[in-house]
Amino acid sequence: MGLVVQKYGGTSVKDAERVMNVAKRITDTYKAGNDVVVAVSAQGDTTDDLIAKGMEINPNASKREMDMLLSTGEQISISLLAMAIEKLGFPVISLTGWQAGFKTDTHYGAARIKRIDTERLRSELDKRRIVIVAGFQGLDKYDDITTLGRGGSDTSAVALAAALHADVCEIYTDVDGVYTTDPRICKTAYKLDDISYDEMLELASLGANVLHNRSVEMAKKYNVKLSVRSSLNNNEGTYVKEVDQVEKMVVRGVTRDNDVARIALCGVEDTPGKAFVIFRMIAKNGISVDLIIQSIGSNGKKDISFTVAEAELEKTLELLEENKSTIKYNEIKWTKDVSKVSIVGAGMVNNSGVAATMFEALYDAHININMIATSEIKISVLVDRKDAERAVVAIHDKFLLN
Amino acid sequence: MGLVVQKYGGTSVKDAERVMNVAKRITDTYKAGNDVVVAVSAQGDTTDDLIAKGMEINPNASKREMDMLLSTGEQISISLLAMAIEKLGFPVISLTGWQAGFKTDTHYGAARIKRIDTERLRSELDKRRIVIVAGFQGLDKYDDITTLGRGGSDTSAVALAAALHADVCEIYTDVDGVYTTDPRICKTAYKLDDISYDEMLELASLGANVLHNRSVEMAKKYNVKLSVRSSLNNNEGTYVKEVDQVEKMVVRGVTRDNDVARIALCGVEDTPGKAFVIFRMIAKNGISVDLIIQSIGSNGKKDISFTVAEAELEKTLELLEENKSTIKYNEIKWTKDVSKVSIVGAGMVNNSGVAATMFEALYDAHININMIATSEIKISVLVDRKDAERAVVAIHDKFLLN
Repeated sequence: MGLVVQKYGGTSVKDAERVMNVAKRITDTYKAGNDVVVAVSAQGDTTDDLIAKGMEINPNASKREMDMLLSTGEQISISLLAMAIEKLGFPVISLTGWQAGFKTDTHYGAARIKRIDTERLRSELDKRRIVIVAGFQGLDKYDDITTLGRGGSDTSAVALAAALHADVCEIYTDVDGVYTTDPRICKTAYKLDDISYDEMLELASLGANVLHNRSVEMAKKYNVKLSVRSSLNNNEGTYVKEVDQVEKMVVRGVTRDNDVARIALCGVEDTPGKAFVIFRMIAKNGISVDLIIQSIGSNGKKDISFTVAEAELEKTLELLEENKSTIKYNEIKWTKDVSKVSIVGAGMVNNSGVAATMFEALYDAHININMIATSEIKISVLVDRKDAERAVVAIHDKFLLN
Repeated sequence: MGLVVQKYGGTSVKDAERVMNVAKRITDTYKAGNDVVVAVSAQGDTTDDLIAKGMEINPNASKREMDMLLSTGEQISISLLAMAIEKLGFPVISLTGWQAGFKTDTHYGAARIKRIDTERLRSELDKRRIVIVAGFQGLDKYDDITTLGRGGSDTSAVALAAALHADVCEIYTDVDGVYTTDPRICKTAYKLDDISYDEMLELASLGANVLHNRSVEMAKKYNVKLSVRSSLNNNEGTYVKEVDQVEKMVVRGVTRDNDVARIALCGVEDTPGKAFVIFRMIAKNGISVDLIIQSIGSNGKKDISFTVAEAELEKTLELLEENKSTIKYNEIKWTKDVSKVSIVGAGMVNNSGVAATMFEALYDAHININMIATSEIKISVLVDRKDAERAVVAIHDKFLLN
């Protein structure tokens, strides 16, 4: 008995049958005595279809008008879901983002939530109504509709849970929860019962497409307990929360990320501030760099290697070519045939030898390591793409098989 | 140079090409130095598709949720039209019904406009922006979205014109204007340059599907000059306004309505208040009666005939059968094979002999008249359906061929 916020993604409400299924799940939660607030995404491919409709007319349409268009997707979902709940005989009301009090900044297409005015929400809950809220959208100071961009609906749900001091925020998706690694790659992967915010943040950014980082960050900030679970079964999911006994398991998950390209600048002049010049130039052009390695120089020259997302490879190479005379290097080498494999665990910071164990696992599997990067709760290695899945299995079974 | 309100229906914006065409027309008006406010309907079959989507999930969904669903149709139109205008390089903004200040009562699905708060509209016009407003929708006192029901977008446009004191409200449709009669029936039909509100009201309710009555009533009340014209060409349309010299032409239009069924109660007891009993009963059951004729009684019995819409025939017959003992009559006769043919003209009230001329036209064409009804600006006759088109031509050419 308490206040439960639930979030359902586009695939969970993609057709009438799925909508009825979700309605059933919501009313079950309500019948158990809870207040229920639900954030919903647009159905299936609706958002993509709307974008295509807009692009057909004007590929350079303003983001303000694009948000006006896209926000209809969630408005359709909430009304259909409310109708489904009415059919089951429960009191319900749907609310658009602005009706639910979502106030955002004016960054159309990628707005940040500034606050939620909860008056309307509270008044509907006081009437014992199930409240269905359009995710992904809000209203700015001009009274114009904004959308929140990637991960928007998850973020809406967490913001609702924070503003209403919900007991839990349940994120429904098409997987059972957070796994130690991708079960499609590694048969011994298993679901985690709980995971800390920081671990989840690392896993999310490393390619475990369960929760968007932005929503996890917000959950951490407002201490919202998340439950990641499947909308297709009743299995217990994974809780994301402040985990106390992080020491009990040093490594919590293994991830693989193929969206990575490696660039090596060979024979860079070994003068102070050189790395600064290079990476400021790259950052100024909106390119995110991930792993960076700098060789120890010899003969006044050194090599600098780093990785970028595949989509940014070409742009980065062009930039480096254009500025060859400024940077001063002999040669650029690059490859897409690499993957980043990482282990994540909040207990790592207190456990020496984790990196050595990881390298041992890779050595045993005869896998060569191209680059290494470490943080307090994560160790990443760059390996050849052909070795990546074997690397995941080897590392997973070294750390996570009990 | 002035303020022009335009309204475009669903067929005028049904696809990207039509949207671009409408955008061109709007920007031409703007380029001529006018302020332009546009009310738009949902694209093509969008509203029907949304209704089907809702009905699939819950055929008995609340009207409040249905309005939440349906209002997305116009929101899609306005954003696409604004994008098209952006493409042409003009300043533009789209506004939903609630952003444009439409305040309505709480009759979801058939809300009445209470007022328009024009602050936002004025401020956008002050910025010299073209303003694209979602027709058919508003906001009620609970901050919930309402839709206006049939003829809603026309009504939105007229309400905007009234609230902003526009110079003209142009209603774009797929016909060139208001004709003396249906050109598909009568080859000699021609377009009227202008017509009075009252004449238009009679024509609209008699089956000339150009403008919804509701919008004409509002235009009359606030003295909004309407221009009915085609979105597919540049022909001058028909002005609907206070016409001074109504005497110049007695009859302005001829209409035919096939959606009519005749019921005759034969041998009704001829006692005072009998008609009252019958028609109160019918009205209480939500059935609208049109023409009514009562024969002069003989032998303490009389016949009462009347017409109803075809869709209500069965319900009316059942009602009369059930109450046979209360009403006391010998027999019910009925037929659907009839049509109502009417002439409309504000000059009629001052011209005797109009009815006689109409009957003469029908006599010359050997067409039998079943029932007759007259009002100040209209005369209707009921004829056999097989004769209806010939009746229209005969009457039209008698009155309207110069």
